[in-house]
Amino acid sequence: MSIDSTTPVPAAPQISRPIGRIPVTEVFPVLEDGDWPAKGTVGEPFPVRATVFREGHDAVAATAVLVAPDGTEHSWALMKDVAKGLDRYEAWLCPDAPGLWSFRVEGWSDPYATWVHDATIKVDAGVDVDLMLTEGSRLLTRAADRDLPAGAAETLRDAAAVLADTSLEPADRLAGGLSDDVAAVLAADPLRDMVSPTVSYPLQVDRRLAQTGAWYEMFPRSEGAHFDLTTGRWVSGTFRTAMPRIDAIADMGFDVLYLTPVHPIGTTNRKGRNNSLNARPGDPGSPYGIGSPEGGHDAIHPELGTFEDFDAFVARARERGMEVALDIALQCSPDHPWVTEHPEWFTTRADGTIAYAENPPKKYQDIYPLNFDNDPEGIYVAIRDMLEVWVSHGVTLFRVDNPHTKPLEFWQRLLAEFRENHPEVVFLAEAFTRPAMMRTLGAVGYHQSYTYFAWRNTKKELAEYLTEVARETSHVLRPAFWPTTHDILTPFMQQGGTAAFALRAVLAATGSPTYGIYSGYELVENIARPGVEEQIDNEKYEFKPRDWGSADATGIALLLGTLNRIRHEHPALGQLHDLTVHPTSNDQVLAFSKRIEARFSPTGRADTVLVVVNLDPFLTHESLIHLDMEALGLRGTDSFRVRDELNGEEHQWGATAWVRLDPRAQTAHVMAVEPL
Amino acid sequence: MSIDSTTPVPAAPQISRPIGRIPVTEVFPVLEDGDWPAKGTVGEPFPVRATVFREGHDAVAATAVLVAPDGTEHSWALMKDVAKGLDRYEAWLCPDAPGLWSFRVEGWSDPYATWVHDATIKVDAGVDVDLMLTEGSRLLTRAADRDLPAGAAETLRDAAAVLADTSLEPADRLAGGLSDDVAAVLAADPLRDMVSPTVSYPLQVDRRLAQTGAWYEMFPRSEGAHFDLTTGRWVSGTFRTAMPRIDAIADMGFDVLYLTPVHPIGTTNRKGRNNSLNARPGDPGSPYGIGSPEGGHDAIHPELGTFEDFDAFVARARERGMEVALDIALQCSPDHPWVTEHPEWFTTRADGTIAYAENPPKKYQDIYPLNFDNDPEGIYVAIRDMLEVWVSHGVTLFRVDNPHTKPLEFWQRLLAEFRENHPEVVFLAEAFTRPAMMRTLGAVGYHQSYTYFAWRNTKKELAEYLTEVARETSHVLRPAFWPTTHDILTPFMQQGGTAAFALRAVLAATGSPTYGIYSGYELVENIARPGVEEQIDNEKYEFKPRDWGSADATGIALLLGTLNRIRHEHPALGQLHDLTVHPTSNDQVLAFSKRIEARFSPTGRADTVLVVVNLDPFLTHESLIHLDMEALGLRGTDSFRVRDELNGEEHQWGATAWVRLDPRAQTAHVMAVEPL
Repeated sequence: MSIDSTTPVPAAPQISRPIGRIPVTEVFPVLEDGDWPAKGTVGEPFPVRATVFREGHDAVAATAVLVAPDGTEHSWALMKDVAKGLDRYEAWLCPDAPGLWSFRVEGWSDPYATWVHDATIKVDAGVDVDLMLTEGSRLLTRAADRDLPAGAAETLRDAAAVLADTSLEPADRLAGGLSDDVAAVLAADPLRDMVSPTVSYPLQVDRRLAQTGAWYEMFPRSEGAHFDLTTGRWVSGTFRTAMPRIDAIADMGFDVLYLTPVHPIGTTNRKGRNNSLNARPGDPGSPYGIGSPEGGHDAIHPELGTFEDFDAFVARARERGMEVALDIALQCSPDHPWVTEHPEWFTTRADGTIAYAENPPKKYQDIYPLNFDNDPEGIYVAIRDMLEVWVSHGVTLFRVDNPHTKPLEFWQRLLAEFRENHPEVVFLAEAFTRPAMMRTLGAVGYHQSYTYFAWRNTKKELAEYLTEVARETSHVLRPAFWPTTHDILTPFMQQGGTAAFALRAVLAATGSPTYGIYSGYELVENIARPGVEEQIDNEKYEFKPRDWGSADATGIALLLGTLNRIRHEHPALGQLHDLTVHPTSNDQVLAFSKRIEARFSPTGRADTVLVVVNLDPFLTHESLIHLDMEALGLRGTDSFRVRDELNGEEHQWGATAWVRLDPRAQTAHVMAVEPL
Repeated sequence: MSIDSTTPVPAAPQISRPIGRIPVTEVFPVLEDGDWPAKGTVGEPFPVRATVFREGHDAVAATAVLVAPDGTEHSWALMKDVAKGLDRYEAWLCPDAPGLWSFRVEGWSDPYATWVHDATIKVDAGVDVDLMLTEGSRLLTRAADRDLPAGAAETLRDAAAVLADTSLEPADRLAGGLSDDVAAVLAADPLRDMVSPTVSYPLQVDRRLAQTGAWYEMFPRSEGAHFDLTTGRWVSGTFRTAMPRIDAIADMGFDVLYLTPVHPIGTTNRKGRNNSLNARPGDPGSPYGIGSPEGGHDAIHPELGTFEDFDAFVARARERGMEVALDIALQCSPDHPWVTEHPEWFTTRADGTIAYAENPPKKYQDIYPLNFDNDPEGIYVAIRDMLEVWVSHGVTLFRVDNPHTKPLEFWQRLLAEFRENHPEVVFLAEAFTRPAMMRTLGAVGYHQSYTYFAWRNTKKELAEYLTEVARETSHVLRPAFWPTTHDILTPFMQQGGTAAFALRAVLAATGSPTYGIYSGYELVENIARPGVEEQIDNEKYEFKPRDWGSADATGIALLLGTLNRIRHEHPALGQLHDLTVHPTSNDQVLAFSKRIEARFSPTGRADTVLVVVNLDPFLTHESLIHLDMEALGLRGTDSFRVRDELNGEEHQWGATAWVRLDPRAQTAHVMAVEPL
C-alpha cells in the first residue's frame, strides 16, 4: 500500500510530556487533544473539570485559571471534588470578551489543609500536641510572609502567635489556627505548594449572539406578493414591501431576522409548485436554485429589489434591534455564471457534461454541486469574496445550507478567516445528519448548529437531549432549537394542532439559548404535502403572502412575544451549560430548570427559571415534580416562591410540587424561582 | 493569587491543527492528548478506533497503520465500521518487538466503492448506463496504473476492458467490474484518494513478560527455616535452603519467581508476630522494615546468604525457565544507613526528630518514609543505582511496594530510564488505591499493576471487571490478578474452603494474562488474624516453613500446574484485549471467552478458550449459557466442539449450552473451542 496523497506523514512521537509534581489528567473541555479550541461565549459560565490527585495522604487542591487572549490571567476558581473517590474536580469560569482565550488547571499541595486534618486529630488524641501547634504557627507565619492584601497578613500573624502561645491551653491554641478569619484569608489567597500547571487549552470565545438569540425566518418575496388579475400572474414581494413585516417581528421580541436566499434563480429545470419537476409559467422557482444570467451568489434577484433596497431593509431591522441573517446555499443552477466562467468548479463526467446533484438513481437536474477538489483555492476565494459582499451590506449572520456536503477543511479555513477579520459574523450550520459530522462542523468553527430537537418529542427523549446539548456537547456545538422550518414539519406538529405549536415553542425558547421560528408558525400552518414531512404548498416553490390579521386567533404570536420577553428578562435562559431535568411522576410532563449564579449574572443577582411542560397536545395532565433543590440554588431550604412568567401567578412551592396543565388553556409553566 | 512554583506557565495555544480532507477524529488508544504512549505488548493484537466520515455521499474508508520504532511502516489494516450511524471504525494491529512504536489512522476517499454503489443502482435502473460503465473502466485503468504485484494490474486491465466493451450487454460489462478478482486486488491494494493521515500516536511496546506470566510469591527465609531446640530460637532459611523449592514451583509451570524483600531488617521498633508493636527476641522482623547497620536496599540480609548465594538462586531459577522478581519497598527502618548518611532524605519535624510514617493519630515507628521533595536528584540517583545492583545480579522484574505513596514524576523518570537502558526489566505496581492513581501509575510507565480482582466476587462484578481490564483500561494498565497475597485474604477466601481457592485460581489464571499465587495457596491457608483481612501468623513477621508433602490433599497444586500448562498451550489466554463475557441463566455461573485470530497467533492457528466457573464454593449450580458465536469465531455455524482442558472431556455444543458444576468435584470448565 502506498500513500496516494501529498499530505506529509507526521514525524515519530516525541518523548513523553513530564507529569507534574501534583498530577492533573483528563482535563475538560478539550477537543481533539487540545488541537482545536473548545467553544466559549461572552458571559457564559462553563465548567472546567480535571482528575487531580497525589501520592500519599497530604491534602491536594486544584485551581482552574482563565487566561485572556492577550495572555493575562483573567480569573481563577478553586476546584471542588465532584465525584468522591474518583478524584474528579470542577470549577466554573466565565470569559467576558470575544477572542482566543485559554485555560489551564493547576494542581497543588495544600499544606494548611494537611495541617488542619492532622492537627485536629492529633491534638484531640494528645499526640505530638506542642509539635503540631508549633508547626501550625510556622505554617501560618510562612503564609503571612507573602504579598497579601492589607489586614490579611496580620490575621495570619495573629493566628500564628496564638498557636505559639504556650501559656494557653492546647485547644485554645489550636482554635486560633482554625478560625474563620484564617480560613477566609487562605480561601482568597491559598498557600499553594508544588503548583503544577497543565498545558494551556484553547477556548474560542464568541459574542453573545453566537449562542443566545431568537431567530425568525422569512421568505422576503412572500411579503407583499400578490396575484395580478390583469396579467394572470404573481407579482413578487420586494424588500420594500416586506419592510412592514420587520416591525411585527420586532414587536414579538426576536433578535435575528433570517432571510432565505435572495439571489437570482435559475430557469433551466426550475422546480414548480410542490416540488414538481417542471415549473409552470409564473412559478418563481426555489430560491435554493441559485444563479441566472442576472447573477449568482453575490447578486440580488431583480424582483426583490436592489442592493439599495436591501441596505434599507437591513437598516430598518437594525433600528428595531434585530440583526439580519442570510441563507447561503453553495450550489448552482445550470444558469449560474460560474458554470460558464469556471466549469472546472464542477464535476465533468466522462461524456463531457457537468454532473447534476444526484442520489442514485435520482438526479436533481436543477442543481449542480460544486466540486471543491478541482480548484480548492479558486472556489475558496470566490466564496469568501461573495460572503464579504454581504458582510459589507450589513449581514452579520449566515445560515449555511447543507454544510455537510462540503469539505470540512473548507469550513475550517473559512470560519477561521472570518473570525479573524469579522469576529462579529456568526455562522449557523444547517446540517441534519449523523452525530460525527454535526459535532465536527461545530468543532471546526461553526458558531451554532441546527439540532435533532424537532424529532425529540417524548419526555425521555427530551430529558436526554436537553442534558446532552447543555452538558455533554456544549463545548463543541451550540444548539439551535427549531420546532419547524420550511423543510421540516414533523408528524407531531402535523397532528397536534395549536397546542403542539404552543408547547414546542415553549420547549424551544426555554430549552436552548438560541431558537428559531419559521414564519407562518403564528398561523399554525400544519398541513403536510402527502408523504413528505414538510408543508404542502411549500413556500420554497411559490409566493406565500399570509393573512397576519388572522394570526391573533391562535394565540401563538402572543405566546412568542411573551417567551421572548421572558428570555430577555431572565439571564438563566440565555445561558447554556447549567440545565437540570427534574423527575416527574407523569410521563407526559417534563420539568427542567436553568440557572445562573449571581457572580456570573449580568444583573448581579442569581437567576433561576423552572419550566414545566405538558407534552401531550390533546389531554390535560397532572404530575408531581420532585425538585433537585441544589440545582435550584435552594439547598437547605424547604420552600420557595415561583412566579409563572406566562400568566403572572405566584405560588409557594416545596421540594415536591404538583401541577395540572391543560393544553387548551395553558400547556406550560415558565416560572421564576425565588427564595422566600 | 500568585503561582508559588518555578514551573513555567505554558505558552498561549497555537492556531488550530488543520482538519484532513477526510476527517478522522477521536482516535483510540490515546493517552493524555497523545503526550504519553499507550501500552502495547510484543505479539499482542490491539484495537485502533477512530471516527471517520466525509462530506456528501461518496464512500469513505480508513486504514490503521502501525509504525516500528525505526519509523518504517510495519503493517496496516483496513478499518471496519463497528457502530453503524456513528461513523466509528476499528482495526486490529500487532507489534512484534519492544520499543517506542507509533500508529496513525488514514482516512481516505474510496472511488471504487463509490462507483460500485452508484453503478449497481444506475445500471439496474437504466440511468446513465454507458456513462457509468465507461467511468468504471477509466477508474480500473487508473487503479491498474499503479505499482502493483504481478498479475494484479492485469486483472484490473482485463476488467476495465470488459467494462468498456460495448459489444457486451450492460449487465455483463458491469459484472466484469464487480468480480471477486477485482475486489481481491483492490482489497490488497486499495485505490485511495484524498488520503488524510492523523498525527502519529505513540505506543510503548514491552516484551511479552510485561503482560503475560504466572507469578509465584515466596519469602525465601521461610524455606528451610527451623526451630533450633538447643538454642530455643528460629534459624532462618537461606537462598541455599530455599533452592529445592525452585524445582517444585517450576514443576507447577510458573514463569516468575517473586521474592519478598531480601535486605537487612531494622531492629529499632521492630514489629513482632501478628503485627505486634514489640518484637520478642528471635522474631525476624518484617522484611519491609528495611535497613540495618548491615546495609540498606542494596544489601542482602546476612541470614539469607551472600550475593553469591543470591546469584546461584537466580541462576537455578533461570535454568528452570523462571525469571526472578524482587520486591522493592522504598522506606527505611530507623537503622537504615541512609538515615545517618542522608538525613535530608527524610522529613525533619519542628523538634528536630525525623518523622515516622503515620496515619494520624497512628504512628508506624518502625518506618521512616522518604521525603522525595527535599533532594529529588539525590534520592533518584540512589534508588536508580540500587536497582541497577539488582539488575546486575539477574533480577529482571521488580514488584514495587506502595508506589502510590511516592511522587508520580519520580516513577515517570525512573521507568523511562530503565526502559531505555534495560528494556527487559519489568515493574509491577503494588498500589491498591483509587482508580486515578492506579491508572496513572500505568500511564507513566509501570509495566503491570495489581488490581481490584481480589475484591470482585459476584458474577456482575466479575463480568464488569473482566470487560474493564480487557477493553477499557488495557491501553493504560496491564492487569495482574492475585487471589491472595501476604497482605490480602478476603472474606470470600476465608470462608469458601478449598473450592474458593480452586475457583479463584481458575478465574485469575484465565481472566488475566498475568496472575500470581502467594506461597501456601496450595495448602489453602485461609485463617485470618481476627479483625484483619490477612492471614493469622502472617509470614511478614515470622518464619513459616510449610509441609509441602501435605499439599497434594487439596488438589490445588495439581490445579495450578494444569492451569499453567493450559496457559502455555493456549495463546488466547496469553492475550489481553479480546475477552467476551457470555450471558448465563444462573447468577452463580460466569462464562467468558478469549480469542486470538490466526493471523496474530504464534501457532498460525486461531485459538479460542471458553471459561465457565461456578462462583459458589458451596453448592452445585446448573446454567444455560447463551454464547456469542461471533466472539467465538463461529459466526454462521450451528455447533462446535469443546474440549475441557481440565479433564480432557469433549462435547459438541451449540449456541445455547448447558453446564452443571459441582464445587466439590470440578468447579469450572476451561474449554478449547474448535470448529467441527
